[in-house]
Amino acid sequence: MNFGARQNKLREHLATTRFDGLLISHLPNIRYLCGFSGSAAFLLVEESGSVFFTDARYDTQAHEEVKAAKVVVASKSALQSVGEWVSRRRKRARGRTIGIEAEHLTLADKKRLNDLLPSGTRLKESPPIVERARMVKDADELQRVRDAVKLGAKLFDRALEVLRPGVKEAEVAAEMEYAARRAGAEEMSFPTIVASGARSALPHGRASNLAIRPGGFVVCDFGVILAGYCSDQTRSVWVGSDSDDARRAYEAVREAQRAAVDAVRPGIAVGEVDAAARKVLRKAGLGRYFTHSTGHGVGLEIHEPPRVASGQTEILQPGMVITVEPGVYFPGKWGVRIEDMVAVTAGGREVLTPTSKDFLAV
Amino acid sequence: MNFGARQNKLREHLATTRFDGLLISHLPNIRYLCGFSGSAAFLLVEESGSVFFTDARYDTQAHEEVKAAKVVVASKSALQSVGEWVSRRRKRARGRTIGIEAEHLTLADKKRLNDLLPSGTRLKESPPIVERARMVKDADELQRVRDAVKLGAKLFDRALEVLRPGVKEAEVAAEMEYAARRAGAEEMSFPTIVASGARSALPHGRASNLAIRPGGFVVCDFGVILAGYCSDQTRSVWVGSDSDDARRAYEAVREAQRAAVDAVRPGIAVGEVDAAARKVLRKAGLGRYFTHSTGHGVGLEIHEPPRVASGQTEILQPGMVITVEPGVYFPGKWGVRIEDMVAVTAGGREVLTPTSKDFLAV
Repeated sequence: MNFGARQNKLREHLATTRFDGLLISHLPNIRYLCGFSGSAAFLLVEESGSVFFTDARYDTQAHEEVKAAKVVVASKSALQSVGEWVSRRRKRARGRTIGIEAEHLTLADKKRLNDLLPSGTRLKESPPIVERARMVKDADELQRVRDAVKLGAKLFDRALEVLRPGVKEAEVAAEMEYAARRAGAEEMSFPTIVASGARSALPHGRASNLAIRPGGFVVCDFGVILAGYCSDQTRSVWVGSDSDDARRAYEAVREAQRAAVDAVRPGIAVGEVDAAARKVLRKAGLGRYFTHSTGHGVGLEIHEPPRVASGQTEILQPGMVITVEPGVYFPGKWGVRIEDMVAVTAGGREVLTPTSKDFLAV
Repeated sequence: MNFGARQNKLREHLATTRFDGLLISHLPNIRYLCGFSGSAAFLLVEESGSVFFTDARYDTQAHEEVKAAKVVVASKSALQSVGEWVSRRRKRARGRTIGIEAEHLTLADKKRLNDLLPSGTRLKESPPIVERARMVKDADELQRVRDAVKLGAKLFDRALEVLRPGVKEAEVAAEMEYAARRAGAEEMSFPTIVASGARSALPHGRASNLAIRPGGFVVCDFGVILAGYCSDQTRSVWVGSDSDDARRAYEAVREAQRAAVDAVRPGIAVGEVDAAARKVLRKAGLGRYFTHSTGHGVGLEIHEPPRVASGQTEILQPGMVITVEPGVYFPGKWGVRIEDMVAVTAGGREVLTPTSKDFLAV
């Protein structure tokens, strides 16, 4: 990971703004820029160099992990340390402007910072420029994402070994999560969804203690974190003897998913990817049951820009990684969703998720 | 859970302020006030009633879970829905003031809200009044916390079955997390710490792929979430033949932990609990190796007020639940920490964690 290069790119951007420096508070952005993986930190990026602030719990870890920045370990809080650092260096440098991350800094932390900084230092809200840089993954990142997706896909194989009527959703999740850990995953990238029966109509139905019964899909939506990078995948499995309705809905979602994947290429707006999925489902008379957006970016965070949603105008570029995950949901009955991760390449796309999408009944 | 009573208590508080309503954006606060456990929501609490906002993904779940509030499902984002709701109802009600959670709302979301609200509606930063209410757990909550702690404690028994030289830290974590899921936990309350050898000197050393070797402690710090409530516990196990140094440090930490637990009672400032632990370690000549605070509140969140730290003046009250977790860390060598969860009772304290604290070597 070339942290110095990432910071320099940010400096080039800073040079085009009126900010003298940028105070990064969002932890995934900090990890992206200097490698720190702990839970309390700030990173001040200035023309002349970068300073990383954390508290005593992370003293050793910060010195091991942080690259391309001076490390300051706070005696009290990391925020207080930022204030002291700027005050010490700025006694005679009035009128400096520090950019802050408007999408992440809370109102209270901004006030605290203001109180800690010397008068004459201005805090100005910055747009999410680090997130914009993070949308396009470099080669190192793409490899990590591929590795995470590959590991994550194994969990579905494990799910299929245990998923049957009478088994609780949470037991399936337990086996998947255990397999993830055994395979080296750091943690799950979000609470595992194993939603059966009518619960499969909840787009976010976390695994519960409900026993799986015949007559519905089990939506399995899961992911791992490996070397900091997330995977995200969904497969839906029918339980018991399948109905025509179920087959029809499944094939429509599969067709919508394929159409959206096929739409992925450089130069296309993300909204067109969403529209491709929506068009198929509308034709199948299922448009109004597709109640969420088609996907989202994935990387150091499980949800990151771009949003792959109706009307969104972000243009796909090589190196972007998104999910494509249409679904239809019939409240009180069942739902079905199919999701892959897709990387945008110079020539089009690379579908990262290796798992079959054939209709499957257990 | 008596959500109506919790909201009414908040209304009583509102009546003493100049706020006409309070917009809750922090998800654990929303869960506390109306029961919603999903990941996208706002709750507007007013004198006349409460309105809950979420997006289409949570339509069914919100209608099932949310109590004591009208449910509005947004066609776009929950935030946009808040704006539309207030605008519709406030066309002729200029000069209304809505409190926002300063500790949680981001600068960008405040700006978005401001742009969505009718002119004349003022957003004012509110102190963390819901967090203050949440500090004192009611009987329902205390029972859930007890259940979570009891389940969590079983994971250490499982750890002891597998923890031995040659086993990877992550394998120990895998077995603990699997046991948690099998026992019905919803998820871990934070990334499991299994830190061996020199890594045990990292207060936050998440389980890695390092194989456990003789000659150091393995610090196991772990917790589960059960019915929404968190557990948090630490035990430190020596590996191999133990040294006098190790025994001495362990017993000093144990004594410090006992002293701090004994200090817990209603009417005492949390800073005195911290001081009780610190005094023991200072006497043992280990004061400067105790680099973090003594504990924190636990409930719907793994870290919540009060902070049990030096100089903190919050007064303990019956119903508060805190961790007591002193530790000493020798960078490059090893560290040791012992942590229980303790509830403040009318008569003093209830130590919730059942696990033995005797020195243990494997």
